[in-house]
Amino acid sequence: MTRRHISGFSNPAVKALRSLRDKKHRRREGLFLAEGLRLLTDARRCGHLPRTLVLSDRRDPHPLLIELESAVDAAGGDIIETTPEILAKITGKDNPQAVAGAFAELDTALEAVDRTTGKLWLVAQDLRDPGNLGTMLRTADAVGAGGLILIDDCADPFSAEAVRASMGAIFTVRLAQAGWAEFLDWLRRGEGQLVAASLRDAQPYRNAPYAAPCFILVGNESQGLPAAYENACDLRVTLPMRGRADSLNAAVAGAVLAYEVLASVEAGGN
Amino acid sequence: MTRRHISGFSNPAVKALRSLRDKKHRRREGLFLAEGLRLLTDARRCGHLPRTLVLSDRRDPHPLLIELESAVDAAGGDIIETTPEILAKITGKDNPQAVAGAFAELDTALEAVDRTTGKLWLVAQDLRDPGNLGTMLRTADAVGAGGLILIDDCADPFSAEAVRASMGAIFTVRLAQAGWAEFLDWLRRGEGQLVAASLRDAQPYRNAPYAAPCFILVGNESQGLPAAYENACDLRVTLPMRGRADSLNAAVAGAVLAYEVLASVEAGGN
Repeated sequence: MTRRHISGFSNPAVKALRSLRDKKHRRREGLFLAEGLRLLTDARRCGHLPRTLVLSDRRDPHPLLIELESAVDAAGGDIIETTPEILAKITGKDNPQAVAGAFAELDTALEAVDRTTGKLWLVAQDLRDPGNLGTMLRTADAVGAGGLILIDDCADPFSAEAVRASMGAIFTVRLAQAGWAEFLDWLRRGEGQLVAASLRDAQPYRNAPYAAPCFILVGNESQGLPAAYENACDLRVTLPMRGRADSLNAAVAGAVLAYEVLASVEAGGN
Repeated sequence: MTRRHISGFSNPAVKALRSLRDKKHRRREGLFLAEGLRLLTDARRCGHLPRTLVLSDRRDPHPLLIELESAVDAAGGDIIETTPEILAKITGKDNPQAVAGAFAELDTALEAVDRTTGKLWLVAQDLRDPGNLGTMLRTADAVGAGGLILIDDCADPFSAEAVRASMGAIFTVRLAQAGWAEFLDWLRRGEGQLVAASLRDAQPYRNAPYAAPCFILVGNESQGLPAAYENACDLRVTLPMRGRADSLNAAVAGAVLAYEVLASVEAGGN
């Protein structure tokens, strides 16, 4: 482990950390950034320590921060102290938190997922907005879902915006990524009810015959689900639309369904 | 009405439109920006025409666009044609839509709100994120709410980000702004059940005794509702939290509750 103070913007370590704001660099390094004492503490409690911990040299003392430093130290990680200005440059935020960390990217292989760990799962297809993705992670945590499965061309869950919107759920929620064909093949090799959040004519979502493990599939923000994907589902449900528009934010639709399924499976709907 | 082509970045009309990205200028001019043919068409159908319509001079022809131009023309509005580059400067987006409009800000006086127009209402307190605000407008439209009431220090509903996230609901949903004391005074002068989305120990949200008109109060993203506000409510309900965190995105929590209340009041829960 190394501990050092950096005061130069052009320091290679600063450049390397800053580059993690780009997906290409995240993939190459296998690292992503997360900020804030609360988030890093949540991560630690879930067994995730940053490889590199970056601290503002004008931070206020805090017992949780001291615990975090000790843990990173003991695990052989790097600790960098730097100015708030450099921290702002690394995180891309004008008012950065006093602490940030570079974490190893999490394993998102679908094959490694154990479906028996949850009665419900969220599945997002082509979800493009990183804020929506982070919000769905947070919802998955709240409803005690087994995890979030990202299908096809979703936003990168390790982007700063998705990590921030997840409010720590990036570390607590099982995450997987797969193409549609791979996902469907995996799903059909075991138990699981696939439920489409449909924009088309479908069964009312309320008191529909949900069965655990229930996989709730939500489509792209502007297109919804492809018809072929909906047709492959075991159940198609829709939310009432009482207004002039015929749509909901994708993360909102997923959450309303997830809470309905939670109530159903907890009442023994399985 | 005037119709003209502008090709200079420093044209005063361009500067005036661009300045609408700042809240201060929006307030002073009483105008806000909205972009995109779909959104402007939704606005027109709800009786809202832009004072100034801005068109890309490289737009594709579209019957709805022609209708929109005619309507603005007939209403005596200004029509400006300009380059995609200037349109990008005005809207602050790299890939601007082919059309944008400057609309008169809508009346948000609480006194003008007729509570009998909806069985449920969304109320947000200190909601700081414009994306969450726009999402709540969209949810209010979807559940057929009477409107969205913004309490205390919320984000500006007329910011580009809120308007965009509302997906047109800024034009379809009744919007009001008030301080807490003014809101409570207004509420108690008529019928209305005030329901707190509580983070604290409260009644389960499912099958709670909701009664129309039901006002669903959601608090600030990080703090939730002040205890005094919760205590002033007729009912405090909470969503199950099965994960490690104890929170949901504010717009998500509001939507899950809104759909529960919708089911209750439509079943005759009043």
